[in-house]
Amino acid sequence: MKWPSHGSNPQHLFKSMGLSLPEKYIDFSANINPLGPPPDLKEKWNDFYQEIIVYPDPFAEKLKNRIAEGEQISNDSILIGNGGAELITLVARLLTGKKVLVVEPTFSEYEMACRANHCEIQYHQLKEPNFELSIDELRLSLPSVDALFLCNPNNPTGIQYSVSTILSIIEECEKQNCFVILDEAFYDFLLDYQSFIPYINKFPNLIIIRSMTKMFAIPGLRLGYLAATPEIIAKLSKLQPHWSINTIALLAGELCLQNKDFINKTQVYIWEERERLHTFYSKNNFEITPSQVNFYLLRDPFFTDQFSLFEFLLHKGIIPRHTFNFPGLEGNWLRFAIKSKQENSALMEVLLEWRKLH
Amino acid sequence: MKWPSHGSNPQHLFKSMGLSLPEKYIDFSANINPLGPPPDLKEKWNDFYQEIIVYPDPFAEKLKNRIAEGEQISNDSILIGNGGAELITLVARLLTGKKVLVVEPTFSEYEMACRANHCEIQYHQLKEPNFELSIDELRLSLPSVDALFLCNPNNPTGIQYSVSTILSIIEECEKQNCFVILDEAFYDFLLDYQSFIPYINKFPNLIIIRSMTKMFAIPGLRLGYLAATPEIIAKLSKLQPHWSINTIALLAGELCLQNKDFINKTQVYIWEERERLHTFYSKNNFEITPSQVNFYLLRDPFFTDQFSLFEFLLHKGIIPRHTFNFPGLEGNWLRFAIKSKQENSALMEVLLEWRKLH
Repeated sequence: MKWPSHGSNPQHLFKSMGLSLPEKYIDFSANINPLGPPPDLKEKWNDFYQEIIVYPDPFAEKLKNRIAEGEQISNDSILIGNGGAELITLVARLLTGKKVLVVEPTFSEYEMACRANHCEIQYHQLKEPNFELSIDELRLSLPSVDALFLCNPNNPTGIQYSVSTILSIIEECEKQNCFVILDEAFYDFLLDYQSFIPYINKFPNLIIIRSMTKMFAIPGLRLGYLAATPEIIAKLSKLQPHWSINTIALLAGELCLQNKDFINKTQVYIWEERERLHTFYSKNNFEITPSQVNFYLLRDPFFTDQFSLFEFLLHKGIIPRHTFNFPGLEGNWLRFAIKSKQENSALMEVLLEWRKLH
Repeated sequence: MKWPSHGSNPQHLFKSMGLSLPEKYIDFSANINPLGPPPDLKEKWNDFYQEIIVYPDPFAEKLKNRIAEGEQISNDSILIGNGGAELITLVARLLTGKKVLVVEPTFSEYEMACRANHCEIQYHQLKEPNFELSIDELRLSLPSVDALFLCNPNNPTGIQYSVSTILSIIEECEKQNCFVILDEAFYDFLLDYQSFIPYINKFPNLIIIRSMTKMFAIPGLRLGYLAATPEIIAKLSKLQPHWSINTIALLAGELCLQNKDFINKTQVYIWEERERLHTFYSKNNFEITPSQVNFYLLRDPFFTDQFSLFEFLLHKGIIPRHTFNFPGLEGNWLRFAIKSKQENSALMEVLLEWRKLH
């Protein structure tokens, strides 16, 4: 197989491709905020040092209170997690042995975590290039499953589904006694996102997962949260290891949530850069997905196989995320994060070189 | 019930006792190195900041290599964990529905994690005041169980079991097709500890768990590792959430393991302070366990119930760990960490006050 099994982590990716990691490279494979963490996190970093000798609050009360207040839900409807990945794993445990439907292409962790918990996986495949989600098509699969995983805006396409479609899905699933796990890892990159969190009070089948590592550029610290009924939260808590969220992540999380201006600045920046990239891609005949967030899928429509482009980019020190292991994509697209202006320009330059050659 | 459910975490403890947390207090409930983290961790702290924007290496290769080298075992016999607690949870998952024997009194997480995984729990109760472990007594319970949890040196007693006893247990368990989970969270506080890690190559039923947060005083960062056969490691890895160990913990761990002098200095310090405390307790008629590490159990032998002493200490700003929820102790002892000379002296002063009153 020519595609490497590693998608992210440049070190492992180059190693598995039999290449040596170049001295200078730009990693477009990680979808985190290109503006970096909120500036006051750096200011507080030294104060955090003294907290490493303290056990984390296993109930994460301060952070939970802050989220509860912001989202206008009760404290016992929230579970803090050691990154979104831990929350996905906990939900998968709750679903042990059940039938699970995954709307593909999407983040591969849902399937992996469910498989590790002996779930039976079914796929609902969205079709390129627009990957539209229709309740009418999805409805046919619902009666046979116990849970549905849906990522909105979706990773890796960056596409946001309509509010009405998602609401119809949640309603329909409730009738069918089916959980909806709505992963909103990238919701806060959108200028206007209607939160589904208030609906946890209406729909006991709704579980919402959010990451705090993307917007606040702290994937190294691990932090996320989950919103659902207190009954679900109680069940998941029991399965979570003690002191699962480290003290530094908790402190960083409390600080980050106060940075409303930073979030807004990021949203505007992403919107502007996406427009700039979009114009370039249209002009130079690259196809991209209609993304609403900080990453997008790209392909050269003149090639059925994108591997040569992938290799070309790696040799130029540009690292996209390949999509070989995303069901329904099979390497037909490459995913790029929106990075700094300079880095995005470097990418465009290299793609222009490619275009001149092909 | 007069004893609060919270053992550690001063904030939650005082709250559940209906008391307000005093402005000045000394927390003797957490068993971490009183010398604090190795000094070069503070020196490197600023450099760590830039790493929070990087996803942790999900394979934790650098840290794993360092441990493998130090312990002279292969890389694939090691699993890095988000604290010892995560590793206990993962092992408990592997044991789902099985019969588990816990040598009590001990760390409560084994039982809690096993219960969450529907194990059937049996106890082997050691008898106070010396809590001696005998293979002859234990042997009677082994044929009926699938796994045995043993902590050495034991928490909360601080007692180290003999090498020959532990080896006999591992051998006997192997014959009976029974896993031995040996928790060595505090092994490195001993001046002369014979590591059982080399035995994982001889006994496929042996699973060793180690914490890195006690010796290096980094409970806020969460870090531990597990050593076992590559087969067991592969099974546990599949159950672990992706990116479970944060980047800062990984970097700190790599640094800490280079601090051999710091470890030795700690061992000598703990030994000296334990002797000093021991002399005081003998002279003033307090009974303590024959601990070999950085904490010990204490009781006033003139009282059958230690609650008055517990309350007295809290009012004086001294926070021990009560033992109400340790099976076989039921609050008959209080656990104290060995802290700084000044803090230990403050404890002795308060206990002298108590002795004068009683």
